[in-house]
Amino acid sequence: MDNFSYCSPTKYVFGRGAENHVAQELASIGATRVMIVYGGGSVVRSGLLDRVKVQLDAANLFHTELGGVEPNPTDPKVREGIALCRETGIDTILAVGGGSVIDTAKAIAAGVPYQGDFWDFWAGKETIREALPVGVVLTIPAAGSEGSGNSVITLLDGMHKISLRTDFWLRPKFALLNPELTFTLPAEQTAAGIADMMAHIFERYFSPTQNVEVTDRISEGLLTAIMTDAVKVMADPRDYEARANIMWSGTLAHNGLCGCGRKEDWVSHFMEHEISAVYGVTHGAGLAVILPAFMTYMANHRPEKGAQLARRVFGVSENDDRLAALEGIGRLKAFFASIGLPLTFGELGIDRPNIELLVRKLHENKGELIGGYMTLGPTETEEIYRLAL
Amino acid sequence: MDNFSYCSPTKYVFGRGAENHVAQELASIGATRVMIVYGGGSVVRSGLLDRVKVQLDAANLFHTELGGVEPNPTDPKVREGIALCRETGIDTILAVGGGSVIDTAKAIAAGVPYQGDFWDFWAGKETIREALPVGVVLTIPAAGSEGSGNSVITLLDGMHKISLRTDFWLRPKFALLNPELTFTLPAEQTAAGIADMMAHIFERYFSPTQNVEVTDRISEGLLTAIMTDAVKVMADPRDYEARANIMWSGTLAHNGLCGCGRKEDWVSHFMEHEISAVYGVTHGAGLAVILPAFMTYMANHRPEKGAQLARRVFGVSENDDRLAALEGIGRLKAFFASIGLPLTFGELGIDRPNIELLVRKLHENKGELIGGYMTLGPTETEEIYRLAL
Repeated sequence: MDNFSYCSPTKYVFGRGAENHVAQELASIGATRVMIVYGGGSVVRSGLLDRVKVQLDAANLFHTELGGVEPNPTDPKVREGIALCRETGIDTILAVGGGSVIDTAKAIAAGVPYQGDFWDFWAGKETIREALPVGVVLTIPAAGSEGSGNSVITLLDGMHKISLRTDFWLRPKFALLNPELTFTLPAEQTAAGIADMMAHIFERYFSPTQNVEVTDRISEGLLTAIMTDAVKVMADPRDYEARANIMWSGTLAHNGLCGCGRKEDWVSHFMEHEISAVYGVTHGAGLAVILPAFMTYMANHRPEKGAQLARRVFGVSENDDRLAALEGIGRLKAFFASIGLPLTFGELGIDRPNIELLVRKLHENKGELIGGYMTLGPTETEEIYRLAL
Repeated sequence: MDNFSYCSPTKYVFGRGAENHVAQELASIGATRVMIVYGGGSVVRSGLLDRVKVQLDAANLFHTELGGVEPNPTDPKVREGIALCRETGIDTILAVGGGSVIDTAKAIAAGVPYQGDFWDFWAGKETIREALPVGVVLTIPAAGSEGSGNSVITLLDGMHKISLRTDFWLRPKFALLNPELTFTLPAEQTAAGIADMMAHIFERYFSPTQNVEVTDRISEGLLTAIMTDAVKVMADPRDYEARANIMWSGTLAHNGLCGCGRKEDWVSHFMEHEISAVYGVTHGAGLAVILPAFMTYMANHRPEKGAQLARRVFGVSENDDRLAALEGIGRLKAFFASIGLPLTFGELGIDRPNIELLVRKLHENKGELIGGYMTLGPTETEEIYRLAL
């Protein structure tokens, strides 16, 4: 086990009616002037946005709004939010939505008190030393941003999609998680979210660090729970218990718990970020395509972790590590297919992907060599992209 | 899954040399005048206390000391600490030790700013609304107090052993966890600690709440990890990796994660608290005796959770729930015995326990009816005590 430091200070309020705590939680972190960040029309149509505003009004909390955050959020919306916060003297950001909304809210929170351009942080030129507090009302369990210190933003100029991770500053102060708010998610979005949260665990599970039994076992338990309840949720989108298990799993998958004590990987996310930046596909759907390709490469070059996964999570009894890992990948793909996820570039709607471009941008953005479980250069990442054809 | 609120804000610094962060972490929470709380001679003999003090001196942090905290800590030491803090204007408590030391530090922290007697909180007469910040250098993984909002203190007058749980105020601000500090723990203490951390999971696992798959799976994963590494640690007390897994498991077993979304039980702890209050036995050893007795009663009256535990954690394949649960208990007892833990009152050194007294005090302290998984009165708890004969 490697040395680590871990702090997950976010307060989670979970269950039916959780969103009704919003004024109380905002007050408890000292909010007086709030900017509500949201995405498309669903939080408007469902009445959730209005219900939040009614609570803020009742608590005499000043609020303004920034709507229209889109999937794979980009820098212009962040800049718009920063300007609006400064104009209106906002001291707290409330994200009402899923990962894109929360990530945008976090970027605004970091940008407001900073003199320079917020992208400096994402570009690695500066370290965040201050940020407005962020609260969350979660509507899409997937990105895990409600409990993470991460934010993924795409710089439109050059389509650089970058994930910034902080230990503290980008962690929300509170997250209100009501599984009922996810009843009406379209099946594709539910499935993509499930792939995303599973990926957050895999990225930490495929680790070169030995002897991290406790973190391995927690990861395997979460994966098992997610797959068990994913099947229920796809069969009945209004199954509260299954929605609840999926929602809480999505938070735990990415709040850092599954990374404690080990080096992480993140190759699959890096590779998918290039796909969604170039082709605009849903992040989780792209992950369902890349993850098995990544694992197949690993089965052929470093099979032990895939074999452990196959045996402990997918019930594979094969003794040979490579064969066990491959059998596990087969079961993972069957699971993904069973919840309607794509398994190839073609199924993702990209018939002739420009793999040369993806590889070039990948290593431009992430460096010549990437990876934690194995170190990969352009030759290897090209092979992984090709395994997804 | 039940509604819940969960916040675990403790910052964990884990690994070799973790204790060397003490001055830095104290500074980061604004400490200026520190009281170091510790127990017997081991932290003195090992040089740990001196190393901590050298760091505080180097950082120009004023410090005073309160040593001599004993296992099953009692109110006089808490009162002594509160008086000392007030005399010397202490603003931060640093616990260097295991559960008894940390629990005492927490009680002092709650008592210092309170006008009345600190026991009011433990007696349930008052709610903590303020407390000094507490930091921890952990030397014994067992109680999980380094990451919990709990503190167990015994009131000498009447030997009332009471566990107080708070959502926020008694949670340490930071905990420094170096597995190397546990290399020299005596085997009995290591084993008792393992029983204690397993009990913290069982108390949450035996829950009447249905459909908490994610929390169940995390709990089962932790239990499996603990037993895997317990065997290694007993074989080689200086096995860093095994010590590390045990230490981190002990924290996660009790920081609230395994209780999220469900009603908890705590009957085994309540019943053991009476045994250790009356007979002064080690808490973890007492738990190793009570847990199988509790589970046996449950196998006969409500077997489903024990059966799930047996199948998922102990590899039992029996179809009948009661028989599966009983087979699981057999394996748990075999595991406890294999690491040298007692399984009966006799093996605990109590040849003729006064069960009538234990039952009376239990229900005096905890109420006429106790339990979460099943509701138990004196008739039932007497039966459980007898199952431990």
